[in-house]
Amino acid sequence: MNLPRPGLTQQARLETLRWGDGVLELIDQRLLPLRFEYRRCSSASEVAEAISTMVVRGAPAIGVAAAYGVALEVMHEASKSRDAQLAAFERAFAELAASRPTAVNLTWALNRQRAVVLHTSQLENADLPTALLYEAHSILHEDIATNQTIGRHGAELIKDGARILTHCNAGALATAGHGTALGVIRSAIAAGKRVSVFADETRPLLQGARLTAWELAQDGIPVTVIADSAAAFLMKRGEIDVVLVGADRVAANGDTANKIGTYPLAVLAQRHAVPFYVACPLSTIDPALAHGDLIPIEERSAEEVTGAAGVRWTPPGIAVRNPAFDVTPAALISALITERGVLVRPDRDGLAALLAG
Amino acid sequence: MNLPRPGLTQQARLETLRWGDGVLELIDQRLLPLRFEYRRCSSASEVAEAISTMVVRGAPAIGVAAAYGVALEVMHEASKSRDAQLAAFERAFAELAASRPTAVNLTWALNRQRAVVLHTSQLENADLPTALLYEAHSILHEDIATNQTIGRHGAELIKDGARILTHCNAGALATAGHGTALGVIRSAIAAGKRVSVFADETRPLLQGARLTAWELAQDGIPVTVIADSAAAFLMKRGEIDVVLVGADRVAANGDTANKIGTYPLAVLAQRHAVPFYVACPLSTIDPALAHGDLIPIEERSAEEVTGAAGVRWTPPGIAVRNPAFDVTPAALISALITERGVLVRPDRDGLAALLAG
Repeated sequence: MNLPRPGLTQQARLETLRWGDGVLELIDQRLLPLRFEYRRCSSASEVAEAISTMVVRGAPAIGVAAAYGVALEVMHEASKSRDAQLAAFERAFAELAASRPTAVNLTWALNRQRAVVLHTSQLENADLPTALLYEAHSILHEDIATNQTIGRHGAELIKDGARILTHCNAGALATAGHGTALGVIRSAIAAGKRVSVFADETRPLLQGARLTAWELAQDGIPVTVIADSAAAFLMKRGEIDVVLVGADRVAANGDTANKIGTYPLAVLAQRHAVPFYVACPLSTIDPALAHGDLIPIEERSAEEVTGAAGVRWTPPGIAVRNPAFDVTPAALISALITERGVLVRPDRDGLAALLAG
Repeated sequence: MNLPRPGLTQQARLETLRWGDGVLELIDQRLLPLRFEYRRCSSASEVAEAISTMVVRGAPAIGVAAAYGVALEVMHEASKSRDAQLAAFERAFAELAASRPTAVNLTWALNRQRAVVLHTSQLENADLPTALLYEAHSILHEDIATNQTIGRHGAELIKDGARILTHCNAGALATAGHGTALGVIRSAIAAGKRVSVFADETRPLLQGARLTAWELAQDGIPVTVIADSAAAFLMKRGEIDVVLVGADRVAANGDTANKIGTYPLAVLAQRHAVPFYVACPLSTIDPALAHGDLIPIEERSAEEVTGAAGVRWTPPGIAVRNPAFDVTPAALISALITERGVLVRPDRDGLAALLAG
């Protein structure tokens, strides 16, 4: 066991991703909470593999990782021609864009790097590798600032004493720091509110039981882990005041893709008159998709469902379905919490106005 | 691996419980599907422990086990006075009745044994130990016959080609044989219908991934395992035609306790206009409880949620809530399938009429 001390994430930022010595280092989230280890990536392929195998996960975090991935690839061509650098850029862009399909932040971050390519093409003596690296640094630091702003806006929705249900991990580990849904919780606590958290364990990969529980416990925030299917029981008993989750992609009408198991929570929240909040940066909104049915939903391997942590319990040869995300209709979302403010009852017009600033 | 051959449960009944050589033998369901082993119980305490630790589980099965448990205890006093036998009976009754709180079949079976005590008290030269053993045999064989009748009634509700979602294990392993919900599926297949099954894995104890998947695969019935939270995704996509579950206790108004995670399925089934059926014997109905909020809900140990199959993944010291059952309001139940027929939209009057025969 090589775990940071409790309180780390408040005292010194938990560095989900960090740049050092010419490589991108990522906390290997598959190993938490049993082992705390960084994985070093020195090429776009290594970053793409870290994204697809979920060494790093969470929509904002994989966006940041992809931005570094293209920078790394072009940096290897620093002594080559601009054409060679552009070829490396396109190769890295394509590979990273394909590493996971659902979160749009990946494409958003890659497009920010493409804008750097376009911009530097108009400059004499432009150093493209360095410009891409600096842009990746910017994306990382902006993500932290964005989450702190999301947190400040969202904290206003959280009442003192609130018992908050969250699903999967929309925390510091899903972002460059602070977190989206868990950032709202951190900001509410910083504002003097007492809150407690129920964390769905989030099968199959147990991001709630492993990551959310770990990250909140590090900060001394009260957290109780439950089986995903126990959330309805607690809502029916009146033990949940708020449901608060992150997002992987928000369509133009407000329909929201998030970790599998989010949609049933929204249905149950409506039935029990519990507010259902989604916290995410504007980079998670995809105005190009009219509605949620158009969001590509990743289906992952059977092995994630037939066991966990290296053990298997399902009989050999049994079929499995393993969709990694589901889509919550906008009508079930009480509010969308972004860095530009809180959008109550998100819909097409509201989102368009939000994006227009 | 010491597994029965495929097709066993159709060709020769899978003996979840069996009597042999003065002991009750129970398939140790905690070990399936990796190991197929019988556990031998020779006292009421051993049976009570097997029930509370879930060596044997499923409302009808634990009723049968408890009936044998009291018989075993009184048989040890066969050479003693009737008073000694009655004391043994009361001791065993109390211990077994307390072994799990939610399923009413336990009390129902124990009360059948109490009726044997009352009946034999009026007979000269009555052999109470033998009478109790015979009654346990009767309860076991009646349970199989009951499930076959439930299956025949329920099969009429299942259309050819139906894609059926089930939760937990309401199969041969939850009963003396054939099963309740899975009995309906077996009977539908026997009637020539093609059906396929989605089995929720059913955290925390994975009765779906371990037991339902194993039992259906043994019979060659197509089964696909999903994470509990993926059921909503499949319903939203129109891939589920019927939800079919068992029950642990049905209150007088039709509110039904079943494995944690059943209630959210019923809410989602209503939203997606998917029929939600509960299959159970009349012994699961508890007319003494006016409504579902009065059903005692067992909360089990944290260790069931912090890991599985001997491994642990939640950080040390994290709080857990682990309710083992939830209650589905009668209004969400399309029909109750019993050995006395199908009760559409169960309510207080319908249940009273059903019980009155």
